[in-house]
Amino acid sequence: MSLPSPSLPVDNGGNTPARGDARPIGVFDSGIGGLTVVSALRRLLPNESIYYLGDTARVPYGGKSAATVQRYSLEIAQLLLGEQAKTIVVACNTASALALPALQERLPVTVTGVIFPGAQAAVAATRNRHIGVIGTRATIKSGAYERALLSLDPRVQIIARACPLLVPLIEEGWLESPITDQVLLQYLEPMLADGIDTLVLGCTHYPLLRPAIARLLGDTVTLVDSTENCARAVQHLLASSAQTAPPAGEGSLQVALTDPPDAFLNVAHEALQLQLGEIQLRAL
Amino acid sequence: MSLPSPSLPVDNGGNTPARGDARPIGVFDSGIGGLTVVSALRRLLPNESIYYLGDTARVPYGGKSAATVQRYSLEIAQLLLGEQAKTIVVACNTASALALPALQERLPVTVTGVIFPGAQAAVAATRNRHIGVIGTRATIKSGAYERALLSLDPRVQIIARACPLLVPLIEEGWLESPITDQVLLQYLEPMLADGIDTLVLGCTHYPLLRPAIARLLGDTVTLVDSTENCARAVQHLLASSAQTAPPAGEGSLQVALTDPPDAFLNVAHEALQLQLGEIQLRAL
Repeated sequence: MSLPSPSLPVDNGGNTPARGDARPIGVFDSGIGGLTVVSALRRLLPNESIYYLGDTARVPYGGKSAATVQRYSLEIAQLLLGEQAKTIVVACNTASALALPALQERLPVTVTGVIFPGAQAAVAATRNRHIGVIGTRATIKSGAYERALLSLDPRVQIIARACPLLVPLIEEGWLESPITDQVLLQYLEPMLADGIDTLVLGCTHYPLLRPAIARLLGDTVTLVDSTENCARAVQHLLASSAQTAPPAGEGSLQVALTDPPDAFLNVAHEALQLQLGEIQLRAL
Repeated sequence: MSLPSPSLPVDNGGNTPARGDARPIGVFDSGIGGLTVVSALRRLLPNESIYYLGDTARVPYGGKSAATVQRYSLEIAQLLLGEQAKTIVVACNTASALALPALQERLPVTVTGVIFPGAQAAVAATRNRHIGVIGTRATIKSGAYERALLSLDPRVQIIARACPLLVPLIEEGWLESPITDQVLLQYLEPMLADGIDTLVLGCTHYPLLRPAIARLLGDTVTLVDSTENCARAVQHLLASSAQTAPPAGEGSLQVALTDPPDAFLNVAHEALQLQLGEIQLRAL
Protein backbone atom coordinates (compact mmCIF):
# COMPACT_ATOMS: atom_id res chain seq x y z
CA MET A 1 0.00 0.00 0.00
CA SER A 2 1.44 3.41 -0.91
CA LEU A 3 1.21 6.06 1.72
CA PRO A 4 -0.58 9.28 0.83
CA SER A 5 1.71 12.06 -0.35
CA PRO A 6 2.48 14.81 2.19
CA SER A 7 0.54 18.05 2.16
CA LEU A 8 2.03 20.93 0.20
CA PRO A 9 2.37 24.56 1.23
CA VAL A 10 -0.12 26.81 -0.54
CA ASP A 11 0.21 30.53 -1.17
CA ASN A 12 -3.04 32.25 -0.20
CA GLY A 13 -2.02 35.52 -1.86
CA GLY A 14 -1.23 37.25 1.42
CA ASN A 15 2.03 37.82 3.22
CA THR A 16 1.79 34.69 5.33
CA PRO A 17 1.94 31.52 3.27
CA ALA A 18 -1.03 29.40 4.36
CA ARG A 19 -0.42 25.72 4.39
CA GLY A 20 -3.24 23.46 3.37
CA ASP A 21 -3.88 19.88 2.44
CA ALA A 22 -5.68 19.85 -0.88
CA ARG A 23 -6.08 16.09 -1.01
CA PRO A 24 -9.72 14.95 -1.05
CA ILE A 25 -11.83 13.52 1.71
CA GLY A 26 -12.71 9.97 0.64
CA VAL A 27 -16.35 9.07 1.28
CA PHE A 28 -18.08 5.77 0.56
CA ASP A 29 -21.43 4.06 0.90
CA SER A 30 -22.92 0.82 -0.38
CA GLY A 31 -24.96 2.96 -2.78
CA ILE A 32 -25.82 6.59 -3.21
CA GLY A 33 -27.59 7.20 0.12
CA GLY A 34 -24.27 8.45 1.46
CA LEU A 35 -24.61 11.55 -0.71
CA THR A 36 -26.65 12.92 2.22
CA VAL A 37 -23.36 12.99 4.14
CA VAL A 38 -21.57 14.55 1.15
CA SER A 39 -24.22 17.25 1.09
CA ALA A 40 -23.59 18.05 4.77
CA LEU A 41 -19.81 18.07 4.19
CA ARG A 42 -20.17 20.47 1.23
CA ARG A 43 -22.21 22.92 3.29
CA LEU A 44 -19.85 22.83 6.28
CA LEU A 45 -16.51 22.49 4.44
CA PRO A 46 -16.88 24.14 1.02
CA ASN A 47 -13.09 24.31 0.51
CA GLU A 48 -12.64 20.56 0.84
CA SER A 49 -12.52 18.31 -2.20
CA ILE A 50 -14.44 15.05 -1.95
CA TYR A 51 -14.08 11.75 -3.76
CA TYR A 52 -17.24 9.66 -3.31
CA LEU A 53 -17.49 5.96 -4.11
CA GLY A 54 -20.94 4.32 -4.17
CA ASP A 55 -20.69 0.52 -4.41
CA THR A 56 -23.90 0.29 -6.45
CA ALA A 57 -22.86 -3.02 -8.04
CA ARG A 58 -23.01 -4.75 -4.65
CA VAL A 59 -25.70 -2.67 -2.94
CA PRO A 60 -27.35 -3.29 -0.49
CA TYR A 61 -24.96 -4.20 2.34
CA GLY A 62 -27.78 -4.39 4.90
CA GLY A 63 -28.35 -8.13 4.60
CA LYS A 64 -24.73 -9.25 4.24
CA SER A 65 -22.39 -10.79 6.82
CA ALA A 66 -19.77 -8.87 8.77
CA ALA A 67 -16.92 -10.68 6.98
CA THR A 68 -18.22 -9.73 3.54
CA VAL A 69 -18.94 -6.10 4.49
CA GLN A 70 -15.43 -5.82 5.94
CA ARG A 71 -13.87 -7.24 2.79
CA TYR A 72 -15.85 -4.87 0.55
CA SER A 73 -15.07 -1.87 2.79
CA LEU A 74 -11.32 -2.58 2.71
CA GLU A 75 -11.40 -2.90 -1.10
CA ILE A 76 -13.12 0.46 -1.38
CA ALA A 77 -10.74 2.08 1.11
CA GLN A 78 -7.80 0.96 -1.06
CA LEU A 79 -9.46 2.59 -4.06
CA LEU A 80 -9.94 5.83 -2.09
CA LEU A 81 -6.28 5.78 -0.95
CA GLY A 82 -5.39 5.42 -4.63
CA GLU A 83 -7.25 8.71 -5.10
CA GLN A 84 -4.98 10.24 -2.39
CA ALA A 85 -7.73 10.47 0.24
CA LYS A 86 -6.37 12.21 3.36
CA THR A 87 -9.16 10.81 5.55
CA ILE A 88 -12.01 8.38 4.96
CA VAL A 89 -15.67 8.76 5.87
CA VAL A 90 -17.82 5.64 6.02
CA ALA A 91 -21.15 7.19 5.00
CA CYS A 92 -23.00 3.90 5.40
CA ASN A 93 -24.51 2.72 8.65
CA THR A 94 -24.04 -0.97 7.87
CA ALA A 95 -20.34 -0.58 6.98
CA SER A 96 -19.85 1.69 10.02
CA ALA A 97 -21.48 -0.91 12.24
CA LEU A 98 -19.54 -3.88 10.87
CA ALA A 99 -16.23 -2.64 9.45
CA LEU A 100 -15.11 0.50 11.27
CA PRO A 101 -12.62 -1.13 13.68
CA ALA A 102 -11.12 -3.20 10.84
CA LEU A 103 -10.69 -0.07 8.72
CA GLN A 104 -9.24 1.97 11.57
CA GLU A 105 -6.72 -0.75 12.37
CA ARG A 106 -5.53 -1.38 8.84
CA LEU A 107 -5.55 2.01 7.11
CA PRO A 108 -2.79 4.66 7.27
CA VAL A 109 -5.39 7.49 7.46
CA THR A 110 -8.13 8.41 9.94
CA VAL A 111 -11.58 6.87 9.47
CA THR A 112 -14.93 8.35 10.58
CA GLY A 113 -18.19 6.42 10.66
CA VAL A 114 -21.80 7.55 11.04
CA ILE A 115 -22.87 5.51 14.08
CA PHE A 116 -21.12 7.48 16.81
CA PRO A 117 -22.16 10.91 15.44
CA GLY A 118 -25.76 9.65 15.21
CA ALA A 119 -25.63 8.36 18.77
CA GLN A 120 -24.25 11.72 19.94
CA ALA A 121 -27.15 13.54 18.27
CA ALA A 122 -29.65 11.18 19.89
CA VAL A 123 -28.23 11.53 23.39
CA ALA A 124 -28.23 15.33 22.97
CA ALA A 125 -31.86 15.28 21.81
CA THR A 126 -33.54 12.90 24.24
CA ARG A 127 -35.25 14.21 27.37
CA ASN A 128 -36.72 10.98 28.79
CA ARG A 129 -33.74 8.80 27.78
CA HIS A 130 -35.96 6.44 25.72
CA ILE A 131 -34.34 6.19 22.29
CA GLY A 132 -35.50 4.19 19.27
CA VAL A 133 -33.14 3.06 16.51
CA ILE A 134 -34.12 1.84 13.04
CA GLY A 135 -31.74 0.48 10.40
CA THR A 136 -30.92 -2.44 8.15
CA ARG A 137 -30.85 -6.03 9.41
CA ALA A 138 -27.04 -6.01 9.60
CA THR A 139 -26.81 -2.66 11.41
CA ILE A 140 -29.38 -3.61 14.05
CA LYS A 141 -28.00 -7.12 14.50
CA SER A 142 -24.52 -5.68 15.13
CA GLY A 143 -25.70 -3.81 18.24
CA ALA A 144 -23.38 -0.94 17.26
CA TYR A 145 -25.90 1.80 18.08
CA GLU A 146 -26.64 0.30 21.50
CA ARG A 147 -22.93 0.23 22.31
CA ALA A 148 -22.39 3.81 21.12
CA LEU A 149 -25.46 5.14 22.95
CA LEU A 150 -24.62 3.38 26.21
CA SER A 151 -21.01 4.57 26.03
CA LEU A 152 -22.34 8.14 25.88
CA ASP A 153 -25.01 7.70 28.56
CA PRO A 154 -25.34 4.41 30.43
CA ARG A 155 -28.83 5.37 31.62
CA VAL A 156 -30.55 5.40 28.20
CA GLN A 157 -33.12 2.76 27.33
CA ILE A 158 -32.94 1.62 23.72
CA ILE A 159 -35.44 -0.13 21.47
CA ALA A 160 -33.98 -1.12 18.11
CA ARG A 161 -35.67 -2.60 15.03
CA ALA A 162 -34.51 -3.75 11.61
CA CYS A 163 -36.69 -2.27 8.84
CA PRO A 164 -35.59 -4.04 5.65
CA LEU A 165 -38.56 -2.81 3.60
CA LEU A 166 -37.81 0.90 3.92
CA VAL A 167 -34.91 1.09 1.45
CA PRO A 168 -36.86 -0.68 -1.33
CA LEU A 169 -39.90 1.55 -0.66
CA ILE A 170 -37.69 4.65 -0.92
CA GLU A 171 -36.02 3.39 -4.09
CA GLU A 172 -39.47 2.67 -5.56
CA GLY A 173 -40.20 6.36 -4.92
CA TRP A 174 -43.21 5.63 -2.69
CA LEU A 175 -42.26 8.38 -0.23
CA GLU A 176 -45.87 9.49 0.17
CA SER A 177 -48.03 6.39 0.00
CA PRO A 178 -50.58 4.67 2.25
CA ILE A 179 -48.55 1.48 1.83
CA THR A 180 -45.41 3.16 3.17
CA ASP A 181 -47.42 4.63 6.04
CA GLN A 182 -48.66 1.16 6.98
CA VAL A 183 -45.19 -0.38 6.80
CA LEU A 184 -43.88 2.42 9.03
CA LEU A 185 -46.76 1.86 11.45
CA GLN A 186 -45.96 -1.84 11.61
CA TYR A 187 -42.29 -1.11 12.36
CA LEU A 188 -42.70 1.88 14.69
CA GLU A 189 -45.83 1.13 16.73
CA PRO A 190 -43.93 -0.89 19.36
CA MET A 191 -41.52 2.04 19.81
CA LEU A 192 -44.35 4.50 20.30
CA ALA A 193 -45.94 2.15 22.82
CA ASP A 194 -42.56 2.02 24.56
CA GLY A 195 -42.57 5.79 24.97
CA ILE A 196 -39.50 6.82 22.95
CA ASP A 197 -39.00 10.56 22.52
CA THR A 198 -36.10 10.28 20.04
CA LEU A 199 -35.71 8.10 16.96
CA VAL A 200 -32.36 7.53 15.23
CA LEU A 201 -32.68 7.17 11.44
CA GLY A 202 -29.87 4.62 11.26
CA CYS A 203 -29.58 4.31 7.48
CA THR A 204 -28.51 6.97 5.00
CA HIS A 205 -31.66 6.43 2.91
CA TYR A 206 -34.09 7.11 5.73
CA PRO A 207 -33.93 10.95 5.80
CA LEU A 208 -35.98 10.81 2.58
CA LEU A 209 -38.85 9.36 4.69
CA ARG A 210 -38.64 12.14 7.30
CA PRO A 211 -42.03 13.68 6.42
CA ALA A 212 -43.85 10.34 6.54
CA ILE A 213 -42.16 9.29 9.79
CA ALA A 214 -42.78 12.68 11.41
CA ARG A 215 -46.47 12.49 10.45
CA LEU A 216 -46.75 9.10 12.10
CA LEU A 217 -44.81 9.90 15.26
CA GLY A 218 -46.15 13.41 15.84
CA ASP A 219 -44.46 16.26 17.69
CA THR A 220 -43.39 14.25 20.70
CA VAL A 221 -40.59 12.34 18.98
CA THR A 222 -37.42 14.00 17.69
CA LEU A 223 -35.89 12.46 14.55
CA VAL A 224 -32.11 12.45 14.38
CA ASP A 225 -29.69 11.34 11.72
CA SER A 226 -25.90 11.33 11.53
CA THR A 227 -25.21 13.59 8.61
CA GLU A 228 -24.68 16.98 10.29
CA ASN A 229 -22.85 15.51 13.27
CA CYS A 230 -20.69 13.37 11.01
CA ALA A 231 -19.65 16.43 9.00
CA ARG A 232 -18.78 18.28 12.21
CA ALA A 233 -16.72 15.32 13.41
CA VAL A 234 -14.76 15.37 10.14
CA GLN A 235 -14.25 19.13 10.44
CA HIS A 236 -12.79 18.70 13.91
CA LEU A 237 -10.63 15.77 12.83
CA LEU A 238 -9.08 17.71 9.91
CA ALA A 239 -8.45 20.78 12.05
CA SER A 240 -6.86 18.80 14.85
CA SER A 241 -4.52 16.99 12.45
CA ALA A 242 -3.62 20.11 10.40
CA GLN A 243 -5.17 18.61 7.29
CA THR A 244 -7.72 21.27 6.33
CA ALA A 245 -7.82 22.35 2.71
CA PRO A 246 -6.20 25.61 1.54
CA PRO A 247 -8.55 28.45 2.51
CA ALA A 248 -8.77 29.87 -1.00
CA GLY A 249 -10.72 28.11 -3.69
CA GLU A 250 -13.70 25.82 -3.80
CA GLY A 251 -13.33 22.07 -3.31
CA SER A 252 -14.25 19.69 -6.08
CA LEU A 253 -16.66 16.77 -5.91
CA GLN A 254 -16.03 13.57 -7.85
CA VAL A 255 -18.66 10.83 -7.69
CA ALA A 256 -17.79 7.29 -8.75
CA LEU A 257 -20.08 4.24 -8.80
CA THR A 258 -19.38 0.54 -9.33
CA ASP A 259 -22.52 0.08 -11.47
CA PRO A 260 -24.02 2.67 -13.84
CA PRO A 261 -26.47 5.08 -12.16
CA ASP A 262 -30.22 4.42 -12.29
CA ALA A 263 -33.30 6.55 -11.78
CA PHE A 264 -32.81 6.76 -8.02
CA LEU A 265 -29.70 8.90 -8.52
CA ASN A 266 -31.91 11.60 -10.04
CA VAL A 267 -34.28 11.46 -7.04
CA ALA A 268 -31.36 11.88 -4.63
CA HIS A 269 -29.69 14.49 -6.84
CA GLU A 270 -32.80 16.69 -6.83
CA ALA A 271 -33.53 16.15 -3.15
CA LEU A 272 -29.97 17.07 -2.16
CA GLN A 273 -29.32 19.76 -4.79
CA LEU A 274 -25.76 18.56 -5.29
CA GLN A 275 -23.79 19.40 -8.44
CA LEU A 276 -22.58 15.90 -9.27
CA GLY A 277 -20.78 16.49 -12.57
CA GLU A 278 -19.74 13.48 -14.61
CA ILE A 279 -20.10 10.12 -12.83
CA GLN A 280 -17.08 7.80 -13.03
CA LEU A 281 -17.54 4.05 -13.34
CA ARG A 282 -15.07 1.98 -11.29
CA ALA A 283 -14.86 -1.81 -11.18
CA LEU A 284 -14.27 -3.57 -7.86
CA MET B 1 -10.10 -22.69 -18.89
CA SER B 2 -9.88 -26.47 -18.54
CA LEU B 3 -12.47 -28.49 -20.41
CA PRO B 4 -14.66 -30.83 -18.39
CA SER B 5 -13.39 -34.38 -18.19
CA PRO B 6 -15.10 -36.92 -20.46
CA SER B 7 -17.85 -39.13 -19.10
CA LEU B 8 -16.84 -42.55 -17.87
CA PRO B 9 -18.48 -45.91 -18.54
CA VAL B 10 -20.42 -47.18 -15.55
CA ASP B 11 -21.33 -50.77 -14.78
CA ASN B 12 -24.98 -50.97 -13.82
CA GLY B 13 -24.63 -54.56 -12.59
CA GLY B 14 -26.33 -56.10 -15.63
CA ASN B 15 -24.91 -57.69 -18.74
CA THR B 16 -24.91 -54.49 -20.76
CA PRO B 17 -22.53 -51.89 -19.40
CA ALA B 18 -24.57 -48.69 -19.06
CA ARG B 19 -22.69 -45.51 -19.71
CA GLY B 20 -23.52 -42.48 -17.66
CA ASP B 21 -22.13 -39.05 -16.90
CA ALA B 22 -21.93 -38.69 -13.14
CA ARG B 23 -20.71 -35.09 -13.24
CA PRO B 24 -23.10 -32.65 -11.56
CA ILE B 25 -25.53 -30.21 -13.07
CA GLY B 26 -24.29 -26.73 -12.10
CA VAL B 27 -27.10 -24.43 -10.99
CA PHE B 28 -26.81 -20.82 -9.88
CA ASP B 29 -28.91 -17.90 -8.73
CA SER B 30 -28.17 -14.49 -7.24
CA GLY B 31 -29.46 -15.89 -3.96
CA ILE B 32 -31.34 -18.92 -2.76
CA GLY B 33 -34.57 -18.42 -4.73
CA GLY B 34 -33.11 -20.73 -7.38
CA LEU B 35 -33.56 -23.65 -4.99
CA THR B 36 -37.11 -23.81 -6.41
CA VAL B 37 -35.50 -24.96 -9.66
CA VAL B 38 -33.26 -27.40 -7.76
CA SER B 39 -36.37 -28.83 -6.13
CA ALA B 40 -37.97 -29.41 -9.55
CA LEU B 41 -34.75 -30.98 -10.88
CA ARG B 42 -34.53 -33.34 -7.87
CA ARG B 43 -38.08 -34.56 -8.42
CA LEU B 44 -37.66 -35.09 -12.16
CA LEU B 45 -34.03 -36.29 -12.22
CA PRO B 46 -33.30 -38.04 -8.89
CA ASN B 47 -30.16 -39.71 -10.28
CA GLU B 48 -28.48 -36.44 -11.17
CA SER B 49 -26.04 -34.74 -8.85
CA ILE B 50 -26.39 -30.98 -8.47
CA TYR B 51 -23.92 -28.30 -7.43
CA TYR B 52 -25.80 -25.10 -6.51
CA LEU B 53 -24.15 -21.71 -6.08
CA GLY B 54 -26.17 -18.86 -4.56
CA ASP B 55 -24.37 -15.52 -4.87
CA THR B 56 -25.78 -14.26 -1.57
CA ALA B 57 -22.90 -11.81 -1.04
CA ARG B 58 -23.97 -9.82 -4.09
CA VAL B 59 -27.72 -10.47 -4.05
CA PRO B 60 -29.97 -8.99 -5.45
CA TYR B 61 -29.12 -8.81 -9.15
CA GLY B 62 -32.49 -7.24 -10.04
CA GLY B 63 -31.32 -3.62 -9.89
CA LYS B 64 -27.89 -4.09 -11.47
CA SER B 65 -26.70 -3.32 -15.00
CA ALA B 66 -26.37 -5.90 -17.76
CA ALA B 67 -22.55 -5.56 -17.78
CA THR B 68 -22.28 -6.29 -14.07
CA VAL B 69 -24.72 -9.22 -14.13
CA GLN B 70 -22.79 -10.70 -17.09
CA ARG B 71 -19.49 -10.34 -15.24
CA TYR B 72 -20.87 -11.97 -12.09
CA SER B 73 -22.52 -14.77 -14.08
CA LEU B 74 -19.30 -15.60 -15.91
CA GLU B 75 -17.37 -15.69 -12.63
CA ILE B 76 -19.90 -18.12 -11.17
CA ALA B 77 -19.89 -20.26 -14.31
CA GLN B 78 -16.11 -20.64 -13.99
CA LEU B 79 -16.58 -21.78 -10.41
CA LEU B 80 -19.17 -24.34 -11.53
CA LEU B 81 -16.85 -25.61 -14.30
CA GLY B 82 -14.23 -26.01 -11.61
CA GLU B 83 -16.75 -28.33 -9.92
CA GLN B 84 -16.89 -30.35 -13.20
CA ALA B 85 -20.40 -29.19 -14.12
CA LYS B 86 -21.54 -30.99 -17.30
CA THR B 87 -24.22 -28.39 -18.00
CA ILE B 88 -25.21 -25.10 -16.36
CA VAL B 89 -28.68 -23.94 -15.33
CA VAL B 90 -29.20 -20.22 -14.76
CA ALA B 91 -31.92 -20.44 -12.08
CA CYS B 92 -32.27 -16.66 -11.89
CA ASN B 93 -34.56 -14.64 -14.10
CA THR B 94 -32.35 -11.54 -14.06
CA ALA B 95 -29.20 -13.43 -15.04
CA SER B 96 -31.17 -15.40 -17.64
CA ALA B 97 -32.51 -12.15 -19.07
CA LEU B 98 -29.16 -10.33 -19.16
CA ALA B 99 -26.38 -12.91 -19.39
CA LEU B 100 -27.61 -16.04 -21.17
CA PRO B 101 -26.20 -15.27 -24.65
CA ALA B 102 -22.83 -14.25 -23.14
CA LEU B 103 -22.70 -17.51 -21.17
CA GLN B 104 -23.76 -19.65 -24.12
CA GLU B 105 -21.11 -18.07 -26.35
CA ARG B 106 -18.22 -18.35 -23.94
CA LEU B 107 -18.72 -21.61 -22.07
CA PRO B 108 -17.69 -25.09 -23.26
CA VAL B 109 -20.92 -26.62 -21.85
CA THR B 110 -24.61 -26.14 -22.57
CA VAL B 111 -26.48 -23.42 -20.64
CA THR B 112 -30.21 -23.35 -19.82
CA GLY B 113 -32.06 -20.29 -18.51
CA VAL B 114 -35.50 -19.87 -16.98
CA ILE B 115 -37.01 -17.26 -19.31
CA PHE B 116 -37.73 -19.46 -22.31
CA PRO B 117 -39.24 -22.32 -20.25
CA GLY B 118 -41.44 -19.77 -18.46
CA ALA B 119 -42.56 -18.28 -21.75
CA GLN B 120 -43.38 -21.76 -23.07
CA ALA B 121 -45.53 -22.46 -20.01
CA ALA B 122 -47.36 -19.14 -20.45
CA VAL B 123 -48.08 -19.66 -24.15
CA ALA B 124 -49.38 -23.15 -23.37
CA ALA B 125 -51.65 -21.83 -20.60
CA THR B 126 -53.21 -18.74 -22.15
CA ARG B 127 -56.58 -18.91 -23.88
CA ASN B 128 -57.14 -15.24 -24.77
CA ARG B 129 -53.45 -14.52 -25.56
CA HIS B 130 -53.27 -11.72 -22.96
CA ILE B 131 -50.24 -12.48 -20.79
CA GLY B 132 -48.88 -10.52 -17.83
CA VAL B 133 -45.25 -10.71 -16.69
CA ILE B 134 -43.85 -9.58 -13.33
CA GLY B 135 -40.18 -9.55 -12.35
CA THR B 136 -37.29 -7.45 -11.11
CA ARG B 137 -36.44 -4.07 -12.65
CA ALA B 138 -33.57 -5.56 -14.65
CA THR B 139 -35.59 -8.52 -15.96
CA ILE B 140 -38.51 -6.37 -17.10
CA LYS B 141 -36.27 -3.66 -18.57
CA SER B 142 -34.42 -6.27 -20.63
CA GLY B 143 -37.58 -7.20 -22.57
CA ALA B 144 -36.42 -10.83 -22.53
CA TYR B 145 -39.87 -12.24 -21.71
CA GLU B 146 -41.51 -10.22 -24.49
CA ARG B 147 -38.98 -11.53 -27.01
CA ALA B 148 -39.39 -15.13 -25.84
CA LEU B 149 -43.21 -14.96 -25.79
CA LEU B 150 -43.44 -13.33 -29.23
CA SER B 151 -41.01 -15.86 -30.69
CA LEU B 152 -43.38 -18.61 -29.54
CA ASP B 153 -46.59 -16.88 -30.60
CA PRO B 154 -46.45 -13.54 -32.42
CA ARG B 155 -50.14 -12.90 -31.65
CA VAL B 156 -49.84 -12.63 -27.86
CA GLN B 157 -50.38 -9.30 -26.11
CA ILE B 158 -48.05 -8.72 -23.19
CA ILE B 159 -48.21 -6.36 -20.22
CA ALA B 160 -45.05 -6.39 -18.12
CA ARG B 161 -44.29 -4.72 -14.79
CA ALA B 162 -41.26 -4.48 -12.52
CA CYS B 163 -42.20 -5.28 -8.90
CA PRO B 164 -39.10 -4.43 -6.85
CA LEU B 165 -40.90 -4.60 -3.49
CA LEU B 166 -41.92 -8.25 -3.74
CA VAL B 167 -38.53 -9.83 -2.99
CA PRO B 168 -38.01 -7.75 0.18
CA LEU B 169 -41.57 -8.52 1.31
CA ILE B 170 -40.94 -12.24 0.80
CA GLU B 171 -37.60 -12.09 2.60
CA GLU B 172 -39.30 -10.22 5.47
CA GLY B 173 -41.63 -13.25 5.67
CA TRP B 174 -44.79 -11.17 5.13
CA LEU B 175 -46.32 -13.77 2.82
CA GLU B 176 -49.77 -13.34 4.35
CA SER B 177 -50.14 -9.67 5.22
CA PRO B 178 -52.56 -6.86 4.33
CA ILE B 179 -49.51 -4.79 3.35
CA THR B 180 -48.36 -7.41 0.84
CA ASP B 181 -51.92 -7.66 -0.51
CA GLN B 182 -51.97 -3.90 -1.10
CA VAL B 183 -48.57 -3.88 -2.78
CA LEU B 184 -49.73 -6.71 -5.05
CA LEU B 185 -52.95 -4.81 -5.82
CA GLN B 186 -50.94 -1.73 -6.75
CA TYR B 187 -48.73 -3.75 -9.10
CA LEU B 188 -51.36 -6.08 -10.59
CA GLU B 189 -54.51 -3.94 -10.93
CA PRO B 190 -53.50 -2.58 -14.36
CA MET B 191 -52.99 -6.15 -15.58
CA LEU B 192 -56.41 -7.24 -14.37
CA ALA B 193 -57.94 -4.19 -16.05
CA ASP B 194 -56.11 -5.20 -19.22
CA GLY B 195 -57.81 -8.61 -19.17
CA ILE B 196 -54.83 -10.97 -18.80
CA ASP B 197 -55.72 -14.64 -18.28
CA THR B 198 -52.12 -15.76 -17.54
CA LEU B 199 -49.45 -14.26 -15.29
CA VAL B 200 -45.77 -15.24 -15.48
CA LEU B 201 -44.03 -15.19 -12.08
CA GLY B 202 -40.74 -13.99 -13.57
CA CYS B 203 -38.56 -14.23 -10.46
CA THR B 204 -37.57 -17.34 -8.54
CA HIS B 205 -38.81 -15.82 -5.26
CA TYR B 206 -42.34 -15.18 -6.45
CA PRO B 207 -43.76 -18.74 -6.18
CA LEU B 208 -43.74 -18.16 -2.40
CA LEU B 209 -46.42 -15.49 -3.00
CA ARG B 210 -48.63 -17.82 -5.07
CA PRO B 211 -51.45 -17.99 -2.47
CA ALA B 212 -51.62 -14.20 -2.06
CA ILE B 213 -51.47 -13.57 -5.82
CA ALA B 214 -54.07 -16.25 -6.55
CA ARG B 215 -56.42 -14.74 -3.94
CA LEU B 216 -56.11 -11.35 -5.61
CA LEU B 217 -56.44 -12.51 -9.20
CA GLY B 218 -59.15 -15.14 -8.68
CA ASP B 219 -59.86 -18.20 -10.79
CA THR B 220 -59.70 -16.48 -14.15
CA VAL B 221 -55.91 -16.00 -14.21
CA THR B 222 -53.44 -18.90 -14.45
CA LEU B 223 -50.13 -18.43 -12.64
CA VAL B 224 -47.10 -19.93 -14.35
CA ASP B 225 -43.48 -20.15 -13.33
CA SER B 226 -40.43 -21.65 -15.00
CA THR B 227 -39.35 -24.30 -12.58
CA GLU B 228 -41.08 -27.43 -13.95
CA ASN B 229 -40.52 -26.48 -17.57
CA CYS B 230 -36.90 -25.61 -16.89
CA ALA B 231 -36.30 -29.04 -15.32
CA ARG B 232 -37.92 -30.73 -18.32
CA ALA B 233 -35.72 -28.70 -20.68
CA VAL B 234 -32.63 -29.86 -18.79
CA GLN B 235 -33.84 -33.47 -18.88
CA HIS B 236 -34.20 -33.28 -22.66
CA LEU B 237 -30.85 -31.57 -23.08
CA LEU B 238 -28.99 -34.25 -21.09
CA ALA B 239 -30.74 -37.07 -22.93
CA SER B 240 -30.06 -35.58 -26.34
CA SER B 241 -26.37 -35.10 -25.58
CA ALA B 242 -25.89 -38.53 -23.91
CA GLN B 243 -25.00 -36.88 -20.63
CA THR B 244 -27.57 -38.41 -18.28
CA ALA B 245 -26.33 -39.76 -14.98
CA PRO B 246 -25.77 -43.49 -14.40
CA PRO B 247 -29.19 -45.06 -13.80
CA ALA B 248 -28.20 -46.64 -10.49
CA GLY B 249 -27.74 -44.55 -7.39
CA GLU B 250 -29.12 -41.31 -6.08
CA GLY B 251 -27.61 -38.00 -7.09
CA SER B 252 -26.05 -35.75 -4.47
CA LEU B 253 -26.87 -32.11 -3.75
CA GLN B 254 -24.18 -29.64 -2.74
CA VAL B 255 -25.23 -26.09 -1.89
CA ALA B 256 -22.65 -23.30 -1.77
CA LEU B 257 -23.21 -19.62 -0.95
CA THR B 258 -20.95 -16.58 -1.24
CA ASP B 259 -22.19 -15.16 2.09
CA PRO B 260 -23.24 -17.18 5.17
CA PRO B 261 -26.90 -18.24 5.17
CA ASP B 262 -29.51 -16.16 7.01
CA ALA B 263 -33.00 -16.86 8.30
CA PHE B 264 -34.52 -16.83 4.83
CA LEU B 265 -32.70 -20.07 3.97
CA ASN B 266 -34.75 -21.82 6.64
CA VAL B 267 -37.99 -20.45 5.19
CA ALA B 268 -37.06 -21.69 1.72
CA HIS B 269 -35.70 -24.96 3.08
CA GLU B 270 -38.98 -25.77 4.83
CA ALA B 271 -41.14 -24.61 1.94
CA LEU B 272 -39.21 -26.73 -0.56
CA GLN B 273 -38.48 -29.73 1.71
CA LEU B 274 -34.99 -30.10 0.29
CA GLN B 275 -32.24 -31.97 2.15
CA LEU B 276 -29.52 -29.33 1.92
CA GLY B 277 -26.75 -30.93 4.00
CA GLU B 278 -23.75 -28.81 4.91
CA ILE B 279 -23.59 -25.42 3.18
CA GLN B 280 -20.23 -24.50 1.64
CA LEU B 281 -18.97 -20.93 1.73
CA ARG B 282 -17.22 -19.78 -1.46
CA ALA B 283 -15.61 -16.39 -2.08
CA LEU B 284 -16.07 -14.67 -5.43
